[in-house]
Amino acid sequence: MSLTATTVEDVCRSAKRAARRLATLDRRVRDGALARIASSLEERVDQILDANREDMQRAEEKGLEPALLDRLLLTEERVAAMAEGVRQVAALPDPVGELIDGRRLPNGLDLRRVRVPLGVVAVVYEARPNVTIDCTALCLKSGNAVVLRGSSSAQRSNAALAAIAAEAAEAAGIPAGAIGLIASGERGDDLRALATAKDSVDLIIPRGGEGLKRALEEVATVPVIYAAAGNCHVYVDAEADLERARAIVVNAKTQRPGVCNACETLLVNSHVAPAFVPLIVRELLARGVELRTCARTRALAGDLADRLRPADERDWQTEYLAPILAVRVVDTLDEAVEHIDRYGSGHSEAIVTESTDAARAFCDAVDAACVYVNASTRFTDGFEFGLGAEIGNSTQKLHARGPIGLRELTTYKYVIEGAGHVRE
Amino acid sequence: MSLTATTVEDVCRSAKRAARRLATLDRRVRDGALARIASSLEERVDQILDANREDMQRAEEKGLEPALLDRLLLTEERVAAMAEGVRQVAALPDPVGELIDGRRLPNGLDLRRVRVPLGVVAVVYEARPNVTIDCTALCLKSGNAVVLRGSSSAQRSNAALAAIAAEAAEAAGIPAGAIGLIASGERGDDLRALATAKDSVDLIIPRGGEGLKRALEEVATVPVIYAAAGNCHVYVDAEADLERARAIVVNAKTQRPGVCNACETLLVNSHVAPAFVPLIVRELLARGVELRTCARTRALAGDLADRLRPADERDWQTEYLAPILAVRVVDTLDEAVEHIDRYGSGHSEAIVTESTDAARAFCDAVDAACVYVNASTRFTDGFEFGLGAEIGNSTQKLHARGPIGLRELTTYKYVIEGAGHVRE
Repeated sequence: MSLTATTVEDVCRSAKRAARRLATLDRRVRDGALARIASSLEERVDQILDANREDMQRAEEKGLEPALLDRLLLTEERVAAMAEGVRQVAALPDPVGELIDGRRLPNGLDLRRVRVPLGVVAVVYEARPNVTIDCTALCLKSGNAVVLRGSSSAQRSNAALAAIAAEAAEAAGIPAGAIGLIASGERGDDLRALATAKDSVDLIIPRGGEGLKRALEEVATVPVIYAAAGNCHVYVDAEADLERARAIVVNAKTQRPGVCNACETLLVNSHVAPAFVPLIVRELLARGVELRTCARTRALAGDLADRLRPADERDWQTEYLAPILAVRVVDTLDEAVEHIDRYGSGHSEAIVTESTDAARAFCDAVDAACVYVNASTRFTDGFEFGLGAEIGNSTQKLHARGPIGLRELTTYKYVIEGAGHVRE
Repeated sequence: MSLTATTVEDVCRSAKRAARRLATLDRRVRDGALARIASSLEERVDQILDANREDMQRAEEKGLEPALLDRLLLTEERVAAMAEGVRQVAALPDPVGELIDGRRLPNGLDLRRVRVPLGVVAVVYEARPNVTIDCTALCLKSGNAVVLRGSSSAQRSNAALAAIAAEAAEAAGIPAGAIGLIASGERGDDLRALATAKDSVDLIIPRGGEGLKRALEEVATVPVIYAAAGNCHVYVDAEADLERARAIVVNAKTQRPGVCNACETLLVNSHVAPAFVPLIVRELLARGVELRTCARTRALAGDLADRLRPADERDWQTEYLAPILAVRVVDTLDEAVEHIDRYGSGHSEAIVTESTDAARAFCDAVDAACVYVNASTRFTDGFEFGLGAEIGNSTQKLHARGPIGLRELTTYKYVIEGAGHVRE
């Protein structure tokens, strides 16, 4: 198995060899392999939990924070959930082989554009061992070989999971090397080797914090899709239904503040600010949200004004990922768009309005992966969007924008059929 | 106009500001601007030719090669052809605003994916001044601002063309700054500044040789789509119609040897090699093509054998861009695919066969932008493919593979409409 390969280069080269054969396998074989991986995870749960116990023990000795310990922990239920996730991915439509478009050309050549796997997808991730299985399932489903590079804290858990998946996949007809695991090195040499393996790796997807992102940005020559920060805004327009606006702002800020599609700044049109600001300030404070606001917001907050902190430039820039919200009053939709253009990260932006013209103007002018009318930014998600799964969320404009699902793990090729055609 | 801006950063920032407004303009405005650019080029042809005369004079003094001088030269006819090209681009379907897909989600949210401009596209190019206008037309048509960085040898011609285009565009309602020109610096500092202008430039497309490519690869943090080398193969299968094979090989090699979709290596199945090798060798030699072959090819070439040079490893790797062809006999389709996998650049690969199974196996297994059955590789081209235009040819797998047309100069956004929807 690929897991006995010793260097990063070996793992990547084996994956590339496997990828070529994998790309020509029927859906039946790939889905069969996923089914077998799911069963093997359930059958060999003891082996997984044993490995995880060792990781947990070392992590506790090292004094890892409770939140990180919880992310590292595997239980029988969590392994069962992984297996269930693999079965759900298997049940999704096959992205491979889709006829995207095509035509007969004037000279009689038949041209078609067909969806094909990328080849080798590398995923770099932290703590959570379930990512090992989630990403393996998405990559195999989309006909790609996968190279996994988890964190050293989850090393034994990841190795056990990857070995089980690789054995099951191979037994079901997937070529050896299609699931490769790289042990995380102390000095990050392995990350550099992976990020420069241009000849064998087609795409790297990092799933981790800003540190990982910067480390990759510095060295990568392999294409990277960064799952990105979300500095998301809700703009309450002059024509907003204020009850809707209240519900949307509360949801976008408080339903799960620690995620990238949560709202970080509220923009309120000055026309409705005298009515809306006191109402939303009261509710958010009651829900334990810290508010950092412009002077006009404070002036409208009445007796609550002294509970509001003044916002500075940094507040407009910050993705809090916490129960903190920046608030600013603007005079026009254009001013809201300009604020978003300046500070937004191009992730998810919402307008609350009853005006069709305002909705249209906002959607046209805001340059972001996801633009919402009268809905919470919290919906940006591969599952919510009906993609069935996601491996992250992109704020890039090239290749994949928004949720990265199975389709985004593919490319296309042109297939051109003639009858001896030559060019004049 | 943007042309008075002095630094690379200024040009890029102006382009970004323009791009935001440009993205919301109707097709009518963009096409109107293109029509006006076309007329202005015709009306102000003397100004263009004057500027070009200065470039030509300096180039002659510097002792530029005749081929390069010809590429630099503008004439009344060439300016007229540019104007005509702009009108053709204007007539193409609008890629902006296309509804790619969409659905009503189970929760009632309406989700749609809409094609939108990338924003700011930078084009780095050598000698030919017509690229200034071609790329301006493609970028404006696709709703993008363009930053042009031509070569210093064409500096005056490019400046005249860009100024005329920018004035015409602005007069037709395109925001100032949408067409920006960077003067090529002596030490390439401007290239570095452009390639790292991550906050304002969305994509760089280099159109030039390997030197330019390497210079960009070293410094670029902005996404780059490299118009790539084509080490293209024709494989003559065991089941090939040999007359078709002959016509396709001759066309793919000799119709225009200096372009990236020309054939560089011929692979012949050993089953048909005894009949095909003597035939094709005779014809290609008669057409002045130099042949570098494996020993088996020479053994089959009869009295022509001593006119064939032995091929070495480097020949399989080389994109000759010249009337030279490497030839190798292989025993199976798999061996042909392995050769292509090892040496091909993923550009255009062809099989000649009457067997549906062989055609299918080749198309599935070969990992390239364009795979041909019974047709010449020379068809890989945006115009031939019915895209109406192209700005280059990509062998990347991410975002754009194959011809880069108007669609490849766009991205998409998700627009999600609700009625006060919040996430549970």
